Amino acid sequence: MSLVVVGSVAYDSLETPHGKVDRILGGSCTYIALAASFFTRAKIVAVVGDDFAPADAALLSGRGIDLEGLERVPGKTFFWSGVYSADMNDRTTLVTDLNVFANFDPKLPESYRSEPYLLLGNIQPALQRSVRAQMNGLRFIGGDTMNYWIRDYRDELLSAIRQWDFLLINDSEARMLSGVHNLRRAAEKIITMGPRTLVIKRGEYGAILFHDHQHFIVPGFLLEDIFDPTGAGDCFAGGFMGYLAQQGVHPHTEQIDHQLVRRAVIYGSVMGSFCCERFGPDRFRDLSRDEIDARYREFKAFTDF
Amino acid sequence: MSLVVVGSVAYDSLETPHGKVDRILGGSCTYIALAASFFTRAKIVAVVGDDFAPADAALLSGRGIDLEGLERVPGKTFFWSGVYSADMNDRTTLVTDLNVFANFDPKLPESYRSEPYLLLGNIQPALQRSVRAQMNGLRFIGGDTMNYWIRDYRDELLSAIRQWDFLLINDSEARMLSGVHNLRRAAEKIITMGPRTLVIKRGEYGAILFHDHQHFIVPGFLLEDIFDPTGAGDCFAGGFMGYLAQQGVHPHTEQIDHQLVRRAVIYGSVMGSFCCERFGPDRFRDLSRDEIDARYREFKAFTDF
Repeated sequence: MSLVVVGSVAYDSLETPHGKVDRILGGSCTYIALAASFFTRAKIVAVVGDDFAPADAALLSGRGIDLEGLERVPGKTFFWSGVYSADMNDRTTLVTDLNVFANFDPKLPESYRSEPYLLLGNIQPALQRSVRAQMNGLRFIGGDTMNYWIRDYRDELLSAIRQWDFLLINDSEARMLSGVHNLRRAAEKIITMGPRTLVIKRGEYGAILFHDHQHFIVPGFLLEDIFDPTGAGDCFAGGFMGYLAQQGVHPHTEQIDHQLVRRAVIYGSVMGSFCCERFGPDRFRDLSRDEIDARYREFKAFTDF
Repeated sequence: MSLVVVGSVAYDSLETPHGKVDRILGGSCTYIALAASFFTRAKIVAVVGDDFAPADAALLSGRGIDLEGLERVPGKTFFWSGVYSADMNDRTTLVTDLNVFANFDPKLPESYRSEPYLLLGNIQPALQRSVRAQMNGLRFIGGDTMNYWIRDYRDELLSAIRQWDFLLINDSEARMLSGVHNLRRAAEKIITMGPRTLVIKRGEYGAILFHDHQHFIVPGFLLEDIFDPTGAGDCFAGGFMGYLAQQGVHPHTEQIDHQLVRRAVIYGSVMGSFCCERFGPDRFRDLSRDEIDARYREFKAFTDF
């Protein structure tokens, strides 16, 4: 069973303390689909310009990702450029050229519409709703958002997430969305907005899962080198949802097993950690499922008591 | 077997978003000894002025804490006053009156000198060394320090910690002490400075234990209300060392069991979390060992996968 992923496909130029890269493949849809592809078949919905390189398409299709929903239009692909601070906890955006992404109006290929799993990357909430409306056999749907939509498109966003099974956001977004600083109380409030499962991402500190009146906290993986954190949150989402799709969860007819969702959070954390080990999505070129499972066991080892 | 604790006993006036308290009992020695007292007998070494209230001495002795090493001299007790930010991640010091603490020259009562466990709170490294030199049957010794000693008393500090079995510091102190940003690499470097066991405290995000080429990460407890974070790091230290003393570790003759040290980190985290639930050390007035063990089980429940 496949996972439909909607979001941006972009070119990024970025600089971290480890170096500089120019026009490397990026975008939320790219990272989510690559991370998910180690668990399930991903089908992407995105738009690129005529500058989109065959080698980049080949990276995606080489991972079994379905590109039928990757629209190619005249013009340039979304471009972002930024510089990370010395500790990589902050980044400064230098350029954001939306280019063809400015008119993105996701249309799902017929072959996508009856898939059971949908992961909505961080795009305008109205577009997230439109994608959902085009699907007709959904079992499990969720997505990401950001401060901009929370602040300036609040009503649209609330209508969108009301239909979601899960929401993955970071801690400052959770505080902004709920208007509550304490994360435990913030989560309680967000759960009433629709998503029964909430994952709050905390960057290097890991993530918290709120689900069925329980919570689960996983610390971040302690990398010896954080090479480039770009896309780590999206890879978390891809690993989380990819694992659940692989396991075939069906929450509308039965209660999801807590341990299953917890394991999905660990696989999300694993994929986010690998993402940081090289520039852009480079780590996924040669990553193996064995390495993923070995890191899963490392999470067990460093949290067990 | 008892634990000797050295540090400050103080009066604190502080303000958090939950309210304001005036001249409440504080100081590193107070918090460490109170937290440790739920596990083992603590014997304190500190100095107070003639304003030290009998009710505060009674709180300590009521927890079985030995006050023979609590020196009382003419003058005023160490006084600190501060205000926490709205999210309680920062605090501004308004007043620091060292008072009688300025001339603190710890002298251990005869009855303390052969105790096996020593926990050195954050005081001048030369005084930490002097205390160590007064003891003659030590099995396990460690302590805390702060940015001021790391920056301005580096050589003294390095001589002190060279003799320690463990060091408990926070993440920014670990970075400052090692000169390395990445915590995993920072820890490797600090371990070469003497302490074979290193705990890096991360505030609300929990703690990392480095021990015998392994690491263990525990997330912070997700409190619904952080009432007052003053003393939480010291309570972590007290819980950590109190538990180890209770278990009777003896690292000079045998390898410490990893699981034992991990459990000590959890008990440290448990005590730090209770500390934040009320102003100052108030939570320890009625805390029970059953509540402590229940929270230990909660740590198991929210980290298990």
